[in-house]
Amino acid sequence: MTPTPTSHPDDDRSAPVPTPQPTSHTATTDVSAPLRVALLGGGTVGAAVARLLGERAELLAARVGRPLELVGVAVRDTSRVRDGVDPALITDDAVALVDGADLVVEVMGGLEPARSLIERALVRGVPVVTANKQLIAQQGPELHALAAEHGTDLHYEAAVMAAVPVMAVVRESLAGDEIASISGIVNGSTNYVLDLVARKGVPFEDAVRQAGELGYLEADPTEDLEGLDAAAKIVLLARTAWGLPVTLDDVQRQGITHLTDTDFEQAAANGTVIKLVASAWRSSAGGGDRVEVAVRPVALPQDDPLAQAREGANVLIVEARSAGTLRLHGAGAGGDATASAVLGDIVRAARVR
Amino acid sequence: MTPTPTSHPDDDRSAPVPTPQPTSHTATTDVSAPLRVALLGGGTVGAAVARLLGERAELLAARVGRPLELVGVAVRDTSRVRDGVDPALITDDAVALVDGADLVVEVMGGLEPARSLIERALVRGVPVVTANKQLIAQQGPELHALAAEHGTDLHYEAAVMAAVPVMAVVRESLAGDEIASISGIVNGSTNYVLDLVARKGVPFEDAVRQAGELGYLEADPTEDLEGLDAAAKIVLLARTAWGLPVTLDDVQRQGITHLTDTDFEQAAANGTVIKLVASAWRSSAGGGDRVEVAVRPVALPQDDPLAQAREGANVLIVEARSAGTLRLHGAGAGGDATASAVLGDIVRAARVR
Repeated sequence: MTPTPTSHPDDDRSAPVPTPQPTSHTATTDVSAPLRVALLGGGTVGAAVARLLGERAELLAARVGRPLELVGVAVRDTSRVRDGVDPALITDDAVALVDGADLVVEVMGGLEPARSLIERALVRGVPVVTANKQLIAQQGPELHALAAEHGTDLHYEAAVMAAVPVMAVVRESLAGDEIASISGIVNGSTNYVLDLVARKGVPFEDAVRQAGELGYLEADPTEDLEGLDAAAKIVLLARTAWGLPVTLDDVQRQGITHLTDTDFEQAAANGTVIKLVASAWRSSAGGGDRVEVAVRPVALPQDDPLAQAREGANVLIVEARSAGTLRLHGAGAGGDATASAVLGDIVRAARVR
Repeated sequence: MTPTPTSHPDDDRSAPVPTPQPTSHTATTDVSAPLRVALLGGGTVGAAVARLLGERAELLAARVGRPLELVGVAVRDTSRVRDGVDPALITDDAVALVDGADLVVEVMGGLEPARSLIERALVRGVPVVTANKQLIAQQGPELHALAAEHGTDLHYEAAVMAAVPVMAVVRESLAGDEIASISGIVNGSTNYVLDLVARKGVPFEDAVRQAGELGYLEADPTEDLEGLDAAAKIVLLARTAWGLPVTLDDVQRQGITHLTDTDFEQAAANGTVIKLVASAWRSSAGGGDRVEVAVRPVALPQDDPLAQAREGANVLIVEARSAGTLRLHGAGAGGDATASAVLGDIVRAARVR
């Protein structure tokens, strides 16, 4: 497997968005006309989505049942050149773009204005596809309620493990089963660091630096290294798997920044490998029916399936009562891999209209 | 992983079915009334579906949005006791059962009367969930056309790798991507045999016998050992991945019956493992746009992901242009695992009505 640098959703920001108001007009329902797609964000993922919408126009039209038309790409900095994006589509008026769309794709990242723009689309009955894990972890239930109220839906397969279809598995494929637990390596950046240390013997601090230089870590790597990225992902999975309220505050979270070379030496001496594991399981401790969620470094036996995740790979293990143990493995990040999940959600959202 | 004996769909047969005729009445659409589910087949999978429909009634009603009511289980031999199935539901009148149902689940196996009963349901606009890989491999396009004509749908996640959601991945999750190739170990029975030989050093003939005794092989193991089961599965995957006509006749098929202990010794000496690999890839050889499909024993390096499938496990690797390499692993057979996929499809089919 070739390394796939982790890329976070673009952090482009537009101007503040006015509070969305229900409007009398709703999205077009003439199914012979092209479906107007608004793209919010033109970073690594956004540019890949724009390019692939063009390259795969014919395939997508066949799968959706009508052509898709990218009507604009809202970005903060309109002067920046973006590979694969027609400059004529670039705009800084995200509000107008949303108001003229039949489907909104949000890959700008951050809480605002992403949230207001998504709400604005949902209130118009327009489906939204997003890769924004932090926003959904914090506002998912409210956004779902708003979508339901206006007869539309919110899709975010791309928010967790890019194109590895883990959200679809816990939401749809196992809809007739009872999930007992979920565990996995859901952050490729930290896995890259830990793998460098474990398999190449690179000192921990150097591994963090190398991962940064190779694009696996952001300039501010806190979200990855402290387990905040993994926490958001396991919250989305747990909430979807059990339909219970699970928030970021519920996560027993420990990142990898406090680890030392001594920890790694000890793990190796014991025949184990340290991995940052995100997990969720149903618990009846104390007589209640609740979900436990955790993100923490764990020393795993060498032959554990999670121990075998190399470089930036992601792995998820789902234990279900009837299905048994399902294991999904793939690239958990990268512009094109994330765009693949976004396009899958676009087809899903556009087909059901 | 504990061994999961392969169980084939029940081979119960009912009386021949009259040619289905379009009728003027269609399924009920009163969404507050229970959805009437007809189950065709009461073997290992059928009994598990019946039991789980009861045990999970509340969960399923919540996910579907209305209660599900199992209205009958059609079997050939009504005198046989079937664990977990209410004897009052047992009937040998499959036609009447289908005609009174809002959703039909076919797990009887075999071509007839399964095909006629499925057609009868589809003509009434009633969705069908089936685990019948041979029937779909042979009649899938015709049945899909019939379903579309009558505004309903046909679901068969359970036909390929039980609850490992490979059909959903190639059909839905990668709907915005371009699949380059699919390869995997999709028959647990032969994998169990090959694993016994490779890892336990059991002579090939003895391994086949042991697998039979443990329930991994049918009394007539031809369908597994000659690769016919794997061929049907890779045809379903290839057809769904590329939307091109692919039939069982297109499969370059070679089973494992001709293998000898010398083959296994040679493989081991070369540091390889023999696996029965099903594969499909898009080819432009000769200037055309076609799909190649094959099932054959392959000597794989020890560290190949497919080489690591133990006992009755199944693994599928999907290469997509944007998503990269996705790998799915789990039990590919077993009554409960197959029933999990059937229940997932029931929720999917019932939700969209």
